[in-house]
Amino acid sequence: MPKSREIHLVARPEGLPGEEDFKVVETVVPDASDGEVLVENHYMSVDPAMRPRLTDGYELNEPMLGSALGRVVQSRADGFAVGDFVLNRFGFREYFVAGPETLTKVEPVEGLPLTVHMHALGGTGFTAYGGLLKIGQLKPEDKVFVSTAAGAVGSVAAQIAKIKGCWVVGSTGSEEKARWLADEVGLDAVINYRETPIRRGLRGAATEGIDVYFDNVGGDHLDAALASMNTLGRVAVCGMISGYNEPGARTTVRNLANIIYGRITLRGFTAADFLEMRPAFVGEMTEWLRDGRVRYKETVFEGIDAAPRALIGLFQGLNVGKMLVKLAG
Amino acid sequence: MPKSREIHLVARPEGLPGEEDFKVVETVVPDASDGEVLVENHYMSVDPAMRPRLTDGYELNEPMLGSALGRVVQSRADGFAVGDFVLNRFGFREYFVAGPETLTKVEPVEGLPLTVHMHALGGTGFTAYGGLLKIGQLKPEDKVFVSTAAGAVGSVAAQIAKIKGCWVVGSTGSEEKARWLADEVGLDAVINYRETPIRRGLRGAATEGIDVYFDNVGGDHLDAALASMNTLGRVAVCGMISGYNEPGARTTVRNLANIIYGRITLRGFTAADFLEMRPAFVGEMTEWLRDGRVRYKETVFEGIDAAPRALIGLFQGLNVGKMLVKLAG
Repeated sequence: MPKSREIHLVARPEGLPGEEDFKVVETVVPDASDGEVLVENHYMSVDPAMRPRLTDGYELNEPMLGSALGRVVQSRADGFAVGDFVLNRFGFREYFVAGPETLTKVEPVEGLPLTVHMHALGGTGFTAYGGLLKIGQLKPEDKVFVSTAAGAVGSVAAQIAKIKGCWVVGSTGSEEKARWLADEVGLDAVINYRETPIRRGLRGAATEGIDVYFDNVGGDHLDAALASMNTLGRVAVCGMISGYNEPGARTTVRNLANIIYGRITLRGFTAADFLEMRPAFVGEMTEWLRDGRVRYKETVFEGIDAAPRALIGLFQGLNVGKMLVKLAG
Repeated sequence: MPKSREIHLVARPEGLPGEEDFKVVETVVPDASDGEVLVENHYMSVDPAMRPRLTDGYELNEPMLGSALGRVVQSRADGFAVGDFVLNRFGFREYFVAGPETLTKVEPVEGLPLTVHMHALGGTGFTAYGGLLKIGQLKPEDKVFVSTAAGAVGSVAAQIAKIKGCWVVGSTGSEEKARWLADEVGLDAVINYRETPIRRGLRGAATEGIDVYFDNVGGDHLDAALASMNTLGRVAVCGMISGYNEPGARTTVRNLANIIYGRITLRGFTAADFLEMRPAFVGEMTEWLRDGRVRYKETVFEGIDAAPRALIGLFQGLNVGKMLVKLAG
């Protein structure tokens, strides 16, 4: 029965969350009962989409939920052995007991760290893949705009678009991230929106307009995209982080009337929209990662105490690539 | 060579247009040359979509353009005889000379006035038909919300949805129009947004949510719809009149992030998106009009002098159904 620390939400933040909205709670996790396993989490994920759940979704004074990668330390369930690594939804805690139906066993891919299953080869990458190919109806030679292009989803989306033969412009919020996108990831154009207003930057860069916008931001980024969209353009709406710290998670958009004469489609989506693409995604992405055609970055905070700071940091642009918290291992 | 009066745009309005932005100009129209016809317009159309063109589109000090129904009074073109009625794009003037490529001959439908070709059986009705069926992917038993449901496009869209077996709520801005929609058109629910805020009204009426929103308004109406949309809902965006008198024709929307977890599609469209549906539309709509299953209203201003007033009146809610100006006949 290991001692475990876990993060509770203790207050519902208005605006940007603060560390005082969270509390580290020490608890004792029971041994696995029949049919269960005891898991020690090694890494947990923090995601922008967690912000709306702080307002409405997560229970107060309960351990929060989120994606994590853990190692089985005790097994009383068929098919699970001590040492197996499992993806699970029980982030924000060091240990937990659960049944097999909540766990996905992870097989190591040679030459890649296990954590790729938490981003490029996991839900994050799959969201980018299906969002671009199915929701955005990506075609070769499309002009593509990806916002938060140095983020976990954005960086994968931008690289998939490049691999599929598109011209790609990305936006990001620091010179360090802009350099990574231009020099290592190889985007055709990069806009640092803290230096150049996004609308002007996009208009200057996308001289042939935009056919597909992969939106993670909403607000001014979406307005800028709408001002540059080509006829019959598609906007795949993955997230709208610009509004996540506003009351009701509201983001303000002013140029939406542009979609009428442009005959433009905006489509909000989750991975539920393209579950059938999962095998194709795993096949292609494994190859791209091995070949180094898809690059990734991880920003890793250490220890469960740092989880609130990591989550808050997403809204301060502290991450390049996937933001993770290392809990053990 | 008849004398003709025509409407020129003489100033680009900011906000709601005023009569001083327009001028009635008297001119002399030449006789038809070889291959041309001389047409006397009997009715002309005013449409909300003309507003953005006052800012950017129409030339200053030139006769404005718009849909009209006229009678051939002189023909030097094959296939056109004196007395033929023709739809044309040369509204805002009493007479004009043009070649056959710009004219569509109109055949009377027994029991219906010729002016139905300017609304329910014309581009207005076709926009409603294709917008609902193709863009909105309407299915029987869908819950449908139509804004400006007593307007030219809205009233047809709402009735098509009823005919196709849907539950329909419409919004409008006066008690007179609300009564027409409830008592004669037979909508399932009607919201007078001047009496009940649209969001509260919609939430109260659409207890099973909204599957398809046919948007003519944008702004607060779209926000209200987004707050009531069911998962996988569709928004067919035909117009956003709420913003047409704002700088840059901008309308402000705040609830757009709702489309993400709702997996909702917004699609701007014009009739160019479904030209292949034209024969099906003409067949069905002719039957529905003859059977009285689709009802319509016309609001008719008299004389070309009244055309600016009629156009401005669209934004003051002066029309029930299609707003026309009668020029002759």
